[in-house]
Amino acid sequence: MRNLLLFIFIFPFQFFAPDASAQAGDSLLIRGIYTEALINPVAYRNLDFLCNRIGGRLCGSSQAEKAVQWTRKVLDGMGLDTVYLQPVIVPHWERGKKETAMVISGKAGNHGLQVCAIGGSVATPGKGITANVVEVKNFEELKSLGREKIEGKIVFYNRAADPAPVYTFDAYGGSVDQRSRGAMNAARLGAAAVIVRSATTVHDNFPHTGNQHYADSVKAIPAFCVSTNDADSLSKWLKTDQRLKLELHSWCILHPDTTSYNVIGEIRGSKHPGEIILVGGHLDSWDIGQGAHDDGAGLVQCIEVLRLFKTLNIKPARTIRMVAFMDEEYNQSGAKVYAGESQRRAGLGKEKHLAAIEADRGGATPQGFSIEGTDEEMKKVLAWKGLFEPYGIWSFEKSGSGVDIRDLKAQGALLIALVTDSQRYFDYHHSASDTFDKVNVRELELGAAGMAALVWLMDNKW
Amino acid sequence: MRNLLLFIFIFPFQFFAPDASAQAGDSLLIRGIYTEALINPVAYRNLDFLCNRIGGRLCGSSQAEKAVQWTRKVLDGMGLDTVYLQPVIVPHWERGKKETAMVISGKAGNHGLQVCAIGGSVATPGKGITANVVEVKNFEELKSLGREKIEGKIVFYNRAADPAPVYTFDAYGGSVDQRSRGAMNAARLGAAAVIVRSATTVHDNFPHTGNQHYADSVKAIPAFCVSTNDADSLSKWLKTDQRLKLELHSWCILHPDTTSYNVIGEIRGSKHPGEIILVGGHLDSWDIGQGAHDDGAGLVQCIEVLRLFKTLNIKPARTIRMVAFMDEEYNQSGAKVYAGESQRRAGLGKEKHLAAIEADRGGATPQGFSIEGTDEEMKKVLAWKGLFEPYGIWSFEKSGSGVDIRDLKAQGALLIALVTDSQRYFDYHHSASDTFDKVNVRELELGAAGMAALVWLMDNKW
Repeated sequence: MRNLLLFIFIFPFQFFAPDASAQAGDSLLIRGIYTEALINPVAYRNLDFLCNRIGGRLCGSSQAEKAVQWTRKVLDGMGLDTVYLQPVIVPHWERGKKETAMVISGKAGNHGLQVCAIGGSVATPGKGITANVVEVKNFEELKSLGREKIEGKIVFYNRAADPAPVYTFDAYGGSVDQRSRGAMNAARLGAAAVIVRSATTVHDNFPHTGNQHYADSVKAIPAFCVSTNDADSLSKWLKTDQRLKLELHSWCILHPDTTSYNVIGEIRGSKHPGEIILVGGHLDSWDIGQGAHDDGAGLVQCIEVLRLFKTLNIKPARTIRMVAFMDEEYNQSGAKVYAGESQRRAGLGKEKHLAAIEADRGGATPQGFSIEGTDEEMKKVLAWKGLFEPYGIWSFEKSGSGVDIRDLKAQGALLIALVTDSQRYFDYHHSASDTFDKVNVRELELGAAGMAALVWLMDNKW
Repeated sequence: MRNLLLFIFIFPFQFFAPDASAQAGDSLLIRGIYTEALINPVAYRNLDFLCNRIGGRLCGSSQAEKAVQWTRKVLDGMGLDTVYLQPVIVPHWERGKKETAMVISGKAGNHGLQVCAIGGSVATPGKGITANVVEVKNFEELKSLGREKIEGKIVFYNRAADPAPVYTFDAYGGSVDQRSRGAMNAARLGAAAVIVRSATTVHDNFPHTGNQHYADSVKAIPAFCVSTNDADSLSKWLKTDQRLKLELHSWCILHPDTTSYNVIGEIRGSKHPGEIILVGGHLDSWDIGQGAHDDGAGLVQCIEVLRLFKTLNIKPARTIRMVAFMDEEYNQSGAKVYAGESQRRAGLGKEKHLAAIEADRGGATPQGFSIEGTDEEMKKVLAWKGLFEPYGIWSFEKSGSGVDIRDLKAQGALLIALVTDSQRYFDYHHSASDTFDKVNVRELELGAAGMAALVWLMDNKW
C-alpha cells in the first residue's frame, strides 16, 4: 500500500490526457497489486500451513475436513462480507496400508517396485495377486491380444508420456487413458489386475496416482501405478524372462459416501452485488503428497485475490467470490453442487456469473490466460494484454478453462483458466513429491497477482 | 529425427504457396530442433557430469582445469570442424578453510552465523577480527557516520534486495553494490572488516558470494557475505545489544595469476566460413556450489546448439562457433582475450562476427531474447516472433546482452542474451545451493533449442 501510494505520487495520473490517464491509472493499480503480493507473500504462508500442517487431503478424509475448517477460518479472519460452507456428498475411498509389488523371476531376480493404488481401486484379495505379466502400449494392442492372452494375467500398460510437446498437459493427455480406463478395458478381457506406467515425462522413483473409471458391466480389478524408472525396469526384466511373475498387494477400502463442503467467501459488489466474478481452485488433493501444486497453489491464490482487494482497499462494483471446490479429483461433485445452486439462484434473478477464473494448473510462473468465450469477449480481454506483459503474462489463448467452473457456462459466464509454466508440473503431479518445497514463493504470488489484476479489470472495464 | 521426418511427411511444405511454404518450412525445422532437444536431453546429461563429477570451478582452480579438459573432450567427440583451447591469464584466489563468524554478546547470546568470504577477499589475521558492529543500509549512511563511528569496526551492510521488481535481476542490481564496493568504501573510513547481507530476495541459510573490488589507494579489508536469515538475526541482536562483538575468521589466499583457457568449437560455414554466429556461456563458477544455473546451464546449452546442428544434419552457411569463456566471474579476462584475438583476425579480413548470443541468466524456462542492436536488426529478429511463440519465447526486448560478448560490438555484431524465467535464479546464485538438482531437464533443453532455432534463422534468413 505504501508503495502504491508512492507510485501514484510519482506519476500523478491526473496530468495525463484522458486516455493516457486511464491507462496510467490501470497500470498503477495493477503495479500496486503485484507489489503487495510480492512484498507480503501471504498466499505462500497459507500454502505452507495447508501442506505442512494439514498435508494431503483426499476428499472424504479427516485431512480434507481439516482443510475445509482451516479455509473457512482463514476467510473468516479476512473481514469478508460472506463466508459459508456448501455441503457436498463425496466419495470416501481410503488407500489403507502402503501397497507392494514384487517381481519374482529365477532369471531376472526378485525386485520390489515403487507402486501405489490408482484412486478408487479395489484392493487385492488378502493373499495378494500373483500372476504373469503382459506388457502393452495401448488399448488396440490389448484388444488384439484378446481374452486368450489376457485372462488371469496382470496387464502392464507402459506407453511413455511423449516429451516432445512443449505444453506438458498435452503429454499427460496423451498417456493418461492407460490410468483412467486401463483397469476397465483389461477387465473386459479377464485380466486379474493392471499396473500402469505413471503419466509423466519425468524419470524418477515416484508412482503417480490419479482417478480411474470402472464400468458397472465388468468386474472391478485392482489397479496400480508404477514409477517411470520401475516401469522401465519391469519392461527390461520382461525381456529377460517373459514368464516372470508379479505379486501385488493393496488394502484399499471404499467407504460409503460422506458429506464434505465447498468453502465460499466473497466481497459483495457495491453497485451490482448480483453480478459475480468467481475465482476458484480445489480443496481436495491426492493423499500421497501434500497437494502443493495440485491444487494447494490454486486454492491459496484464490484466497490471495480476496486478500489483495481487502488490503489495498479496492471496493469492487461486482461481487468477487472465491470458491474452494471439494472433490475435483474424482467427480467434481463440489463443482456440480455449486453450479446447480447458482443456477437455481440465477433462475430467481438473484445472481449471475459474469466470469469465472480457475487456478488448477500448478503454482509455477504464470504465463497467460486460456479463455473459453466468444470472439467479442476474447477481444475485450486481449485489449488488456499490454497491462499484463510487464508481469510476464503474455499468452491469451481461446481454449479450454477448467472442470470446476465449466458448468457455469450455462449462465453465459466467461470461463478462464490461469495458465502457468507447465514444465515441472507433471514431475510432481499426483505423487508423493508434490510438496510445499516444490513451490516458489514468487512464482506463486505472481499467479495470484495476475488473477487479481484480471478480476479488477473485469470489474472496472467490462 | 524420426519425429521431424514424420512432421515433414504430414505437412509436405512444397504444397504451400511460396511464402506460406517458406514459413511452414521454417516452423518444421524449428519443431525438429525442439523435438530432438526434448527427447534426447544431452545438455542435461552434460550438466549432470559438470556439476556432480567436476563441481564448482572457480577460475584458477584444479576443477576449472578439469572443466576445460572435459569441455574439450565433449566437443572433440562431436565431429566438429574445429576445437581448440585459447590461453587466458586468470586470477587464482582460494577460499581456504570454511569461514566462521560468531556473535558474542552477554545480552543477546553467542551465535554462529552462516557466512562466506566474498570472492577475492583478503583473509583475516591469524587470530581473526573481533570488533563491534555498525549496521548501515547504504553508502550514504556509511559516509554520514564518518570515520569516528566506523574506524576499527565491522561494517554490516543490511539493505535487503527489493522483492517488488518482477525481473529479479533488477532486485539484484539494486543491492549488489554492498557486496561489490562495500569493503572498499568501508576501508576508506578505517573499518576493520565488512559483513554483507546476501544479494537475494530469498529467505534462507545460504550465504551468497560474488566478486568485489578493492581500490589500490585503500587498505584491503576482509569481506564476508552472510545469509539473509542470519542478517535478519544479526540486526535483531544489534537492537538488543548495540555493543555486541562479532568474531570473524577467514583463510583466503591470493595466488599469482595462472594460465587457463577458453574452449572453442565450431561448425565451419559452407558458404561464408569467415562470418561467425557465436553462442557463448562461461566455464568458471563460484566454488561453494556446483555452478549449475551460473553458468553450467549456459555452457551445456551452447554445446547443445552445436549438437543439435550436427544431429539434425543441418549444414550452416556461416560458421557456428561455441565459446566456453573462462573467468566471467572476476574480470571477464577470457572474453577480453577472445574479442582481442577476433578483432586481430577481423583486421586481417579473416573473420567477422555477425551475431553473438550469450546464455548466462540461468537454466530456467526461456522467455525471450534481449537484443542489443539497431532498430533495423531488432525489426528483423521481431519478424521471427511468431515462430518462437509456440515454444513460449515471446519477449523480444531492445536491451543489454551480456558481459562475455560485449566487446564484439566493435565488429558490429548483433548482441543477444537468452532471457529465462528469473524468479528462482537468485535463490541459488553464487551459493552452495546452486546445484544440479535445481535445474529442470525440460526448462534447460527448451533454452538450448530456442538458441539453436535463433542461430538457424540468422544463418538462413538474415
